[in-house]
Amino acid sequence: MSDKVIISVDGMGGSNAPRAVVEGMAIAAANCADMHFLICGHQNVLPAVLSEFPELQGRYKFMHADGVVLDNESPVRALRYGQDSSMRAAIDAVKNEQAIACVSSGNTGALMVMSKMVLGMLEDISRPAIVGVMPNRAGGTVLLDMGANTECDEYNLFQFALMGASYAKICLKRANPRIGVLNVGVEEIKGTTLQKRTYELLQNSNLNFKGYVEGFDLIEGTVDVIVTDGFTGNIVLKTAEGTAKLCVEYMKVALKSTILSRIGGFLVRKAIKKQFDKIDTREVNGAMFAGINGIVVKSHGSAESKAFASALKLAYELAKRRVNQDIAAELASLRVDSPASLHPTLMGKIKKTLGMN
Amino acid sequence: MSDKVIISVDGMGGSNAPRAVVEGMAIAAANCADMHFLICGHQNVLPAVLSEFPELQGRYKFMHADGVVLDNESPVRALRYGQDSSMRAAIDAVKNEQAIACVSSGNTGALMVMSKMVLGMLEDISRPAIVGVMPNRAGGTVLLDMGANTECDEYNLFQFALMGASYAKICLKRANPRIGVLNVGVEEIKGTTLQKRTYELLQNSNLNFKGYVEGFDLIEGTVDVIVTDGFTGNIVLKTAEGTAKLCVEYMKVALKSTILSRIGGFLVRKAIKKQFDKIDTREVNGAMFAGINGIVVKSHGSAESKAFASALKLAYELAKRRVNQDIAAELASLRVDSPASLHPTLMGKIKKTLGMN
Repeated sequence: MSDKVIISVDGMGGSNAPRAVVEGMAIAAANCADMHFLICGHQNVLPAVLSEFPELQGRYKFMHADGVVLDNESPVRALRYGQDSSMRAAIDAVKNEQAIACVSSGNTGALMVMSKMVLGMLEDISRPAIVGVMPNRAGGTVLLDMGANTECDEYNLFQFALMGASYAKICLKRANPRIGVLNVGVEEIKGTTLQKRTYELLQNSNLNFKGYVEGFDLIEGTVDVIVTDGFTGNIVLKTAEGTAKLCVEYMKVALKSTILSRIGGFLVRKAIKKQFDKIDTREVNGAMFAGINGIVVKSHGSAESKAFASALKLAYELAKRRVNQDIAAELASLRVDSPASLHPTLMGKIKKTLGMN
Repeated sequence: MSDKVIISVDGMGGSNAPRAVVEGMAIAAANCADMHFLICGHQNVLPAVLSEFPELQGRYKFMHADGVVLDNESPVRALRYGQDSSMRAAIDAVKNEQAIACVSSGNTGALMVMSKMVLGMLEDISRPAIVGVMPNRAGGTVLLDMGANTECDEYNLFQFALMGASYAKICLKRANPRIGVLNVGVEEIKGTTLQKRTYELLQNSNLNFKGYVEGFDLIEGTVDVIVTDGFTGNIVLKTAEGTAKLCVEYMKVALKSTILSRIGGFLVRKAIKKQFDKIDTREVNGAMFAGINGIVVKSHGSAESKAFASALKLAYELAKRRVNQDIAAELASLRVDSPASLHPTLMGKIKKTLGMN
C-alpha cells in the first residue's frame, strides 16, 4: 500500500445511501489530503452520484457490486447470500489489502458477522465488541460493548477493557486511560457475579482500573473507558440518545412558544447550537468493531453526509494511529496476577499471562 | 383508621433531613386536606423544626426514635442495629396500622430490607421491585425494576409487569396499560434467554403485552410500563437523569455565554422552565417498593422540600387508590396459557394459574 490512506466504503449501506455516503466522502476528503476511497456499489447507481462531486476526482476508485444487504436481513442470511453485496466488497477490500479500513452505514449484525468471517479475530481476543465514544461533560468516554454480545463473561469484559483503552488513546487522546466497570453502585459488594469477577480480574492486572462506575459516570466522564455487556451497553446508548433528543426538542418548543421567547430564541440560537454540538451525533458518529483483525467502522444507519464524514474520519484516525497494533502491544505487555478465586476457564491472552495455557 | 390519610414519615432520612422533610410535609398538606402525618425522628431535633411550621398544627403526630440509619450503612447492619431508628419506626407504623403508607429519603437498601422483613410480601409475589415513573414525551412511562434485584428470572419480570400495570393505572391514569419488555431490538429473536422467556410468558397471558421495546422507547413512551431487571433498570435511570442534567447545564451555559445570549436568555427563561419542568425530578420524585405488603415510598436521597412533597403526594395517591388491592385483583383475574417451552420451575400466582401448584 502507498502513503495514501485508502478507506473502502459500502456505497449502498444506510437509509440515505448513496447520496449521503458520497457527499460524506467529499466532506471528509476536503479535510484530509491523504484520504482516498475504494467505493463499492452498483454501477447503475453510484457513478452518477460520484460524478456530481468533481472535487472527488482522483480520490477514489469505484468497484461494482451487484447486491445490497437489506436493513432487516438476518446476519446469517446476509452472510450466505450477500457475497456479491457492496458491504461484502468493502470488507473484502480490507482483507485483500486494497484498503486499510472499511466504513458502512448498513445492517449492523450483517456487518459484524461478515467482518468476523472474512477478516477473523485479533490474536488472543475471543469476541468482537462495538466500541464508540459517548460525548459528555469531560469531552467523551469510550463505551463498549454497545451491542455485539448480549451475554458476556468476565474474560470478554476484561478484553473489552484492554481494547477500549487503545481506542481511548486514539480517539480521545488520553495517555493512560482510566477504566471503569459499569455497575449499580461503586461499592465492591454491588452487582452480579459478572461485575464482581471482572472487577477482580482488572484489579489484579496492570491496566489502569478505577473500579465500578454508575450510569451518571457516563455523563460525568469520571473515567475514560466504561466496560459493560452488549445488552446493557446498547440500552444505555439508546436511552442517552433518546434523552438528549427529548431535551433538544423541549428547547425548540420553548423557543417558539411565545412572542417573547421567539425573539429571545433568535438571540440565543447560536450560543445554544455551540453547546449542543458537543453532543450532536453528527459530530461523533461511528463505532469500531473492536477485536476484528482489520478496521471496520459502523456508521449510524440514518447518517447524513456530515455524520458519514465523521465516521470516515474515525476510520482514518484508527488506521493512521494503528489501533490494532496498539491492542497487540497492550496484550503483549499485559500482566495479570492470579486472583485467589479465579474462575477455572480462562481464555486468550489472559490465559497465557497466567501461565495456565 | 379514620377518614384521615395518615402517612408515616422518616423524619431523619436523606441528606436534607429534617428541614426538607418537614417543609415537604407543609407543601403537600396544603394541597390535600385529608393528608395527615406520623413523623418519626429524634426529640431533640424534630419538634423544633416542626414548630416553625404552624400550618402543620393538628396535621401530625410526632413519634420519638433514638437512632438514624446512615446512608452508607449496609442493609443487613441496618436491619440488625436499626431497630430504634426513625426509618424502622415509620415502617412499623404501617405494620401497626397507625399509618397507611410510609415515606423515607433514607438508605434505599436498608429501607427495602426492613420493609420486606417488617411488612412481608404480597401473596403470590416473590420479590419486591422498585417502581417509578420516567418522565417522557408521552407524559411518563412506568419503569421497574429500578434497582432492587440485580439478577432476575422470567417469573420475577412477569410479576413486575403485573405490578407495573397497577402502578400505571394509578400514577399515569392509564386504563389498560400497555406493557413492554426492555431489549436491544424489537424482533422476537433479540435478547438473552431472560427476555425471550419473559416474552413467552407475557405473550401467553391476559396482560396487555406489546412485545419488546428499546432504550429509545423509554423516552418516546411507546408503552405505559417497561419491565427489566434491576441492574439494567438502575443504570438506565441514572443514565437518563445524567443526560437530562447535562443538557440543562449546556443550556444554562449557552444562555450566559455572550451579551446577546444573556438578553435572549432573559426572554426565554420562563418558556424553557415550563418545558423542562416536565422532566424535573422535583416534580416526579418518589418510587414505590412494589410487592411489599404495605405501601413504602422511597424519595430521592437528596430530595429538597418540593421533591419530598411529591413523594408524599405519591404515597397518598397510592394509598387512596389502593394500589396493593389492585395488584391482588390483577392477580386474581390473571390467566396464563402454558407456553410450549415453559420452564419447569414456576412461582406464585403464575404457578397456580397454570394448575401446577
